[in-house]
Amino acid sequence: MIKVAVVGGAGYIGGELIRLLIAHPQVKLTQIISQSQEGKALSEVHPDLLHSKDQIFEKDLDPTRADAIFLAQPHGAAQKLLESLELSDDSLIIDLSHDHRWQQGWTYGLPEFFKEPILQSKRIANPGCFATAIQLGLLPLAKTNSLTNRAYITAVTGSTGAGQSPTATSHFSWRHNNLSIYKSYSHQHESEILSSIHQVQETKWNQISFVPMRGCFTRGILASIQITNPKADKNQIIEGFLEAYDTSPFVAITETSPHIKQVSNTNNVAISVDCFEQDIHIVVAIDNLLKGAAGTAIQNFNIINHLPEDLGLQLKPTVY
Amino acid sequence: MIKVAVVGGAGYIGGELIRLLIAHPQVKLTQIISQSQEGKALSEVHPDLLHSKDQIFEKDLDPTRADAIFLAQPHGAAQKLLESLELSDDSLIIDLSHDHRWQQGWTYGLPEFFKEPILQSKRIANPGCFATAIQLGLLPLAKTNSLTNRAYITAVTGSTGAGQSPTATSHFSWRHNNLSIYKSYSHQHESEILSSIHQVQETKWNQISFVPMRGCFTRGILASIQITNPKADKNQIIEGFLEAYDTSPFVAITETSPHIKQVSNTNNVAISVDCFEQDIHIVVAIDNLLKGAAGTAIQNFNIINHLPEDLGLQLKPTVY
Amino acid sequence: MIKVAVVGGAGYIGGELIRLLIAHPQVKLTQIISQSQEGKALSEVHPDLLHSKDQIFEKDLDPTRADAIFLAQPHGAAQKLLESLELSDDSLIIDLSHDHRWQQGWTYGLPEFFKEPILQSKRIANPGCFATAIQLGLLPLAKTNSLTNRAYITAVTGSTGAGQSPTATSHFSWRHNNLSIYKSYSHQHESEILSSIHQVQETKWNQISFVPMRGCFTRGILASIQITNPKADKNQIIEGFLEAYDTSPFVAITETSPHIKQVSNTNNVAISVDCFEQDIHIVVAIDNLLKGAAGTAIQNFNIINHLPEDLGLQLKPTVY
Amino acid sequence: MIKVAVVGGAGYIGGELIRLLIAHPQVKLTQIISQSQEGKALSEVHPDLLHSKDQIFEKDLDPTRADAIFLAQPHGAAQKLLESLELSDDSLIIDLSHDHRWQQGWTYGLPEFFKEPILQSKRIANPGCFATAIQLGLLPLAKTNSLTNRAYITAVTGSTGAGQSPTATSHFSWRHNNLSIYKSYSHQHESEILSSIHQVQETKWNQISFVPMRGCFTRGILASIQITNPKADKNQIIEGFLEAYDTSPFVAITETSPHIKQVSNTNNVAISVDCFEQDIHIVVAIDNLLKGAAGTAIQNFNIINHLPEDLGLQLKPTVY
Repeated sequence: MIKVAVVGGAGYIGGELIRLLIAHPQVKLTQIISQSQEGKALSEVHPDLLHSKDQIFEKDLDPTRADAIFLAQPHGAAQKLLESLELSDDSLIIDLSHDHRWQQGWTYGLPEFFKEPILQSKRIANPGCFATAIQLGLLPLAKTNSLTNRAYITAVTGSTGAGQSPTATSHFSWRHNNLSIYKSYSHQHESEILSSIHQVQETKWNQISFVPMRGCFTRGILASIQITNPKADKNQIIEGFLEAYDTSPFVAITETSPHIKQVSNTNNVAISVDCFEQDIHIVVAIDNLLKGAAGTAIQNFNIINHLPEDLGLQLKPTVY
Repeated sequence: MIKVAVVGGAGYIGGELIRLLIAHPQVKLTQIISQSQEGKALSEVHPDLLHSKDQIFEKDLDPTRADAIFLAQPHGAAQKLLESLELSDDSLIIDLSHDHRWQQGWTYGLPEFFKEPILQSKRIANPGCFATAIQLGLLPLAKTNSLTNRAYITAVTGSTGAGQSPTATSHFSWRHNNLSIYKSYSHQHESEILSSIHQVQETKWNQISFVPMRGCFTRGILASIQITNPKADKNQIIEGFLEAYDTSPFVAITETSPHIKQVSNTNNVAISVDCFEQDIHIVVAIDNLLKGAAGTAIQNFNIINHLPEDLGLQLKPTVY
Repeated sequence: MIKVAVVGGAGYIGGELIRLLIAHPQVKLTQIISQSQEGKALSEVHPDLLHSKDQIFEKDLDPTRADAIFLAQPHGAAQKLLESLELSDDSLIIDLSHDHRWQQGWTYGLPEFFKEPILQSKRIANPGCFATAIQLGLLPLAKTNSLTNRAYITAVTGSTGAGQSPTATSHFSWRHNNLSIYKSYSHQHESEILSSIHQVQETKWNQISFVPMRGCFTRGILASIQITNPKADKNQIIEGFLEAYDTSPFVAITETSPHIKQVSNTNNVAISVDCFEQDIHIVVAIDNLLKGAAGTAIQNFNIINHLPEDLGLQLKPTVY
Repeated sequence: MIKVAVVGGAGYIGGELIRLLIAHPQVKLTQIISQSQEGKALSEVHPDLLHSKDQIFEKDLDPTRADAIFLAQPHGAAQKLLESLELSDDSLIIDLSHDHRWQQGWTYGLPEFFKEPILQSKRIANPGCFATAIQLGLLPLAKTNSLTNRAYITAVTGSTGAGQSPTATSHFSWRHNNLSIYKSYSHQHESEILSSIHQVQETKWNQISFVPMRGCFTRGILASIQITNPKADKNQIIEGFLEAYDTSPFVAITETSPHIKQVSNTNNVAISVDCFEQDIHIVVAIDNLLKGAAGTAIQNFNIINHLPEDLGLQLKPTVY
């Protein structure tokens, strides 16, 4: 059994990591760290874990008790923690914050496109949720050097994407029965996406026009990507997607455009690709907390530990 | 035109008061008071009031500029404010907090049952939202001295009932797709309801078993009241309800049990009364922000000013 | 008083027309027609109209009893009805279906841009809901001949846009907590929009890439329009929008991007315009049943009858 | 591996059975029967099963290819099917409709209270969803002969409880942001509950006053049970609940009243028991499709096959 610690175990993503890890057949969850919930039992903090009463939240991480450490803290906290600890180079660290994405010494953890470097690494920067959905739609085009024109992207996220702290825009009275736009053309995931594309496509391209929306649902991201390219060869493009995900246990290319309930509470990805007279239209659906965060983190963990990529990730979908 | 001030104009109930008052044909809204929003324009604080850009929130109430003052502050604040001001006895004060309900010097403002005292009063304590729904179901029985056995009450409220401050239980991620119970058998509206019943029914009765629930909708209260009384005469009971609301412009007795969309965004009340073999079952639907707060406050204002009771309250229902 | 009939009064849009017309100070609603609901009382079919018990649904329209007729039937039915009736040229007909949009003998009823022809007409084809939102975002650009590049449009509609018949995609279990795409690049409103633009802009332009989405809310449309135009002069563009809506009682240009709750249950329109380095980004929010259907129909009715444009349309917003 | 067939695999409950069975380590799903979906692939009918493309829906059940048959058809169909087939007495049949509940020759499949007869049986009538939630709250009292007074019950169900056929009350536009009551005092599960109680409690009792509600959520039932019993000994009552569920892998007695997200997408049950001055108040939360249908069916299957009771039922909760 691999000994695992979760730092930041009280948040949404930390909670999902715990739910996955306590059911993972090759894992022993040895520490759950949360400054705010120290001393509380797991089922007090996550009341759906009704039958998990014994495990207690601790305040400080003890790296000697873990082979692998998942960091699920707010942005900015991971770096501080790592500076304060002496970590063996052998310890696997998977950071789910944006602190180390495309930073030196860290490997970007999108396994569908960077499995080889992930296999060699002990420091994984897990991708952002919007960034995951959008990259899974763009990188198959980048692989065949096909990104030439501007991509117009609208992606809508569930409320869990904004974290657990209650705010004006996560207030039920405001968000329910509503739809809104935020950080138009200025979302921090844009540069994360472009860094990946620069790794995969030979020719330079950075034409993203990204409009993020807040949806009145809890889980999931639906990303719609429009690129005008009248010369695109439809068959070749779809072929490119099929090839890109040929060996992926999670990604499916669907004939009709996907919706969020197809992937909710799973690590799956549904992608549709349509070529119209002028445009290519790509739609991607993921669960933001799983494929967009905790699920991919476990997937990276499995790969690095030479376990089946989907071990502990064959989840019953919620659907309805 | 009657000059009106709203204190606490930034909250949900304050906002509803403003929406009603700016469209009221006999009102001039002279002051909107909010400590937190001082200096802001109305449409900044309530962005649905797109075309109301000039009115500015003020910090301090000036009683000389208003004939009537609506207090829509958090519980506890009204009393402090009144102690700090010199108010003419002629000024009409309608307090929507629970500070003055059934307190000396104040008239309880449920117009369907206390119109006479309201007409004589300049100090109105507006009823609570749950209390309104439940009283409208119980008081017709009290009027005919018919409350003898225990009333088992379940009432479910929309999220706006809990106010605008974001909290764990008003977080969209938690409240959406959920249902929960709070303050079972200990909700503060129980004693408010009983005080009314003691006014209306001659024989003493205080057997309320009240379970409040938080629903995953924004507006509305549905109250279900079960009372075992095998000797009840069905026709007489329904007769009592029809008589109680004979002259009410807002209450309708419906043949099928009401739902929330029947009354949403209106000052209306839908009530069904059914007599089963052992039990009487009464269901009441109201909009918690209107009939349960701001709407009844305007209704009281109209009555006291000898205006038609429904002036400014004939609202287009939202329904869907 | 102007005598008015509503044909198709049992549907969502028909219901909204009735709610507006029974409160309209210059209207007497003389007939409500529905084949399926013949003989039923208004409050049976629309149970929110609790206090409107006397008006009865009729089966056949009697044109002699109405000065104005609103047609709110499914697409295809209006034409049949008109063929079967002898209508005086003086009768005002406002057809809310898509049967007569941009058809000969009919005037396209988007009053913000075609008020002069509407004033002269007795046959009004009321715009579609998506078409309304998108045109309100594009036509100010068309007016100054500024549409040169492709417009990438994502618009999300509430469930009432799809009508009252229960279907798989309007089933609560499916639609709740979900988001989906339909009729990508093939929505029937595209040609309606282009016909308008061809009227307003001198130079030919027809580059629309439109992705419609189904949102998990009931009312409202949020349309996001992205157009790459690096040479656009920001001030001039915003000036164009302000000028286009200078005299409109309903449209507001907002500084932050609008959301649906700003306009819910009103005839208002909120529009934001932002110019980024390469792109113009326009966001439009409307209520699909009001500004996108029944509200604009009443607005047209007011204009043609020389009444104030917003008579009967100053509605209390629902907001929450 | 045990060969299993699902009849009625296209509905909500059938879908849940399939999701559970394809991940069950001791099951081979050999047939999926649906008259309406014959010839379609599993992922066409249940598009969340993205990676299950090969299994095809069949029209007719072949009992020789299955050791166990789950019947998830509409009420009334199971009986017909069984009359038309020759089934070996050795075949295990688990009927999830209400056709055989408390019928001769069939065992009522609520394993928390009837495990012994279930173990001996090959014909299981799986309990109804409301009946499951309410019995789990009442039967611990019945076991100690403590049901003497009337039980006032309000239980709210998610939309999946009403099945997949779209209807007026499952229409998103109507159900969203709404709450309604149906079949007050006349729900068919009342007699099912009473039959169980008559098995468990020695003294006769049939005083149920049950108000079912339709909630605006998709999954889950919250049942609130109020019983006046001033003589009840609090400690003894809680002791009775703890004892009743002592060996249950799924039921937890919680200190605060449960909510639906605690059990969503799991086979778990959360129950709170509070004794007030006059009343006992019991609250039960379950997932209607799992513990209220498919989950309990698998639990019965496990018991009868001498497998661990929770095999294939340790599901990742959805929570948010």
